[in-house]
Amino acid sequence: MKEAGSVISKLYALGAIGFSEGVGTSRVAYTEPFFEGRKYTESLMKEAGLVTRIDSVGNLFGMYPGKSNKKILIGSHLDTVPGGGMYDGALGVLGGIECVGRLIREGCRFNHTIEIVGFIEEEGNAVGGTFGSRCFAGVPFGEKEVAAMVKYGVTPDDASNAKCNPDDYLCYIELHIEQGGLLESRNTSVGIAEGIVGIIRYAAAVKGESNHAGSTPMSLRSDAMMKSCDIIRQLAELVKQADESMVCTVGDFHIPGGAVNVIPGRTEFPIELRYKNVPDMEKVIDKLKRRYPESDMELNQFLNQKETVLDPKISNTVEKICERQNISSVRMFSGAGHDAINTAFIMPSALIFIPSVGGISHSIREYSRPEDIETGISVLCELIKDLDKGEQL
Amino acid sequence: MKEAGSVISKLYALGAIGFSEGVGTSRVAYTEPFFEGRKYTESLMKEAGLVTRIDSVGNLFGMYPGKSNKKILIGSHLDTVPGGGMYDGALGVLGGIECVGRLIREGCRFNHTIEIVGFIEEEGNAVGGTFGSRCFAGVPFGEKEVAAMVKYGVTPDDASNAKCNPDDYLCYIELHIEQGGLLESRNTSVGIAEGIVGIIRYAAAVKGESNHAGSTPMSLRSDAMMKSCDIIRQLAELVKQADESMVCTVGDFHIPGGAVNVIPGRTEFPIELRYKNVPDMEKVIDKLKRRYPESDMELNQFLNQKETVLDPKISNTVEKICERQNISSVRMFSGAGHDAINTAFIMPSALIFIPSVGGISHSIREYSRPEDIETGISVLCELIKDLDKGEQL
Repeated sequence: MKEAGSVISKLYALGAIGFSEGVGTSRVAYTEPFFEGRKYTESLMKEAGLVTRIDSVGNLFGMYPGKSNKKILIGSHLDTVPGGGMYDGALGVLGGIECVGRLIREGCRFNHTIEIVGFIEEEGNAVGGTFGSRCFAGVPFGEKEVAAMVKYGVTPDDASNAKCNPDDYLCYIELHIEQGGLLESRNTSVGIAEGIVGIIRYAAAVKGESNHAGSTPMSLRSDAMMKSCDIIRQLAELVKQADESMVCTVGDFHIPGGAVNVIPGRTEFPIELRYKNVPDMEKVIDKLKRRYPESDMELNQFLNQKETVLDPKISNTVEKICERQNISSVRMFSGAGHDAINTAFIMPSALIFIPSVGGISHSIREYSRPEDIETGISVLCELIKDLDKGEQL
Repeated sequence: MKEAGSVISKLYALGAIGFSEGVGTSRVAYTEPFFEGRKYTESLMKEAGLVTRIDSVGNLFGMYPGKSNKKILIGSHLDTVPGGGMYDGALGVLGGIECVGRLIREGCRFNHTIEIVGFIEEEGNAVGGTFGSRCFAGVPFGEKEVAAMVKYGVTPDDASNAKCNPDDYLCYIELHIEQGGLLESRNTSVGIAEGIVGIIRYAAAVKGESNHAGSTPMSLRSDAMMKSCDIIRQLAELVKQADESMVCTVGDFHIPGGAVNVIPGRTEFPIELRYKNVPDMEKVIDKLKRRYPESDMELNQFLNQKETVLDPKISNTVEKICERQNISSVRMFSGAGHDAINTAFIMPSALIFIPSVGGISHSIREYSRPEDIETGISVLCELIKDLDKGEQL
């Protein structure tokens, strides 16, 4: 607990950059507060004895050489959403620096080179979500994304030049706040992500018959709003029946030409499902389609993002560490996207969660308790030591 | 049926003024097409032998003198919604002219003076709903309405000067399309309105907890969208249980800051109820409030419009006319507002409906069959004759 004080004061110092009272921390990628926050983080890396560099898209790296050039990569992202908190992303970067600093102070001599990364633009408020780690992993970009990056002074060549050589890396480890309430509700200290959920999104349009809200009896109505309420409730039921970890969200809703005294003839809203595999989500959508044919509801898919499978061997190692340190842990899927989605394409990757109080994130109210932060950092330290022995991979 | 041809060709001619292909008839009050349509109607009045005048707010009158100065007023409105049909309003005015024309041709000598009215701005697309008949009935205006009328070149003095002397009038009769599907669904030719429904409107705000759509399990969500679906469905159930003629509509819906990947923390939507009495509607709202306390849902009333009671003696007369002419009829409440709301404040008023095919109105698809129009006109003719005898009032 004494030790956590150091990293917590640094999280506060980083969180103060871009902070405004009543709003939260706005350290959006490619803005001044972001660059200032990155500079502060670089100074912490240097303090800990790391050799730093910034790549062609703005990702920050801090390296501590080991016997081998093969690297264990540890980190997360340095940007926040507008009005965000001080733990999302920052914990994985500052926590990584803290671990390496402690291990160096303990006199640890590494077999592998240890590298800490602070990725840029994970949140997607500038170029697009997980942009920095996409460049690092060499995930190709479309025309739309190229147009977006150019706005922030990043050329397609810059994006290509940020691509790493996967052969240089042993694995990637990301320590992150959960951003949900599962760990808290189960009173569990550590979440071990087996993967990151797949996401499917549909544009839904529900059709009825627009009519006069006064002169049409309830029995003669085809009210698109009432039908939408039924459809959304049934969708939620089907999702709950499918699996307790599947989720669905209707986060927006429109009635074109809506008016207080007109029975809606059409509604439009997005449907999002997240789960550990896409086919099971599509089964839910198929069931919904069987109940509501095209004459009632049109569904057009606009996102089909496959799930990410994280490395089971590292997960087992994390689990064993928790067992021997008497820390409660649970295997879970991450419902939120993370930089590990991209690193998983090119190297064994792991994602470790600590609880978020009230499950709140992307908010000034985002908070993780010091004892949970210390638990996360101590697990990360042990994991670095175990992985450095090279037995698990 | 032969006779109806005449009025139908005139309805077509009036409907052609302001008509545009694929859109419908747009004869909005105080626009050029409205004035052109009123001019055409005035020419029809003169053709039928009526003495015409236009009052200070733009209502058109056509008078046929009888033995007494006491007037039987017959009519409806001459404006349409943008993209409206050719029957709503127009039927009551042209149908009235048709009746008087027929009765004059039949050699009928009236005890009362017969006056046909074409009210301006019933639809509320300029100054406000039923503006012309409000002025005629002397219903007072607030500041907001005065500001609105001035925009259309109508001064508060003009509005006052349009007020009639109620002592001059025996009664008001409005023939109108139903704008609903009740008559059609019951295969009935004539609807006799006992009144016009009261309306209550509330601004509803449903409260939940905004959160990340990926990392919050269904079981830990307080999703304002899902809660809203439950509330709206339960409202509809309570309304159906209360009475088959009570209706409720949620015609618009907003999620402030809505996004595909955010669990809604708040939704906002209007609730409208219509029924023949306000207290029964308020009972429904009270039941809903008991199920959903203020922590779940805020409800703020923004309209409380009392029901209109139409004249039971004239209704009885209409019913008897239908019986002796072997025309099917039904007593009903009007779910839509009409100029009769205002005339009812100052004189016995009646409202007679004929079927709307598919219950459709305020649309290019608005249609009433020639046989139904003829039935309406023949009932109106009989009613004028009966009322002119003066026995029923």
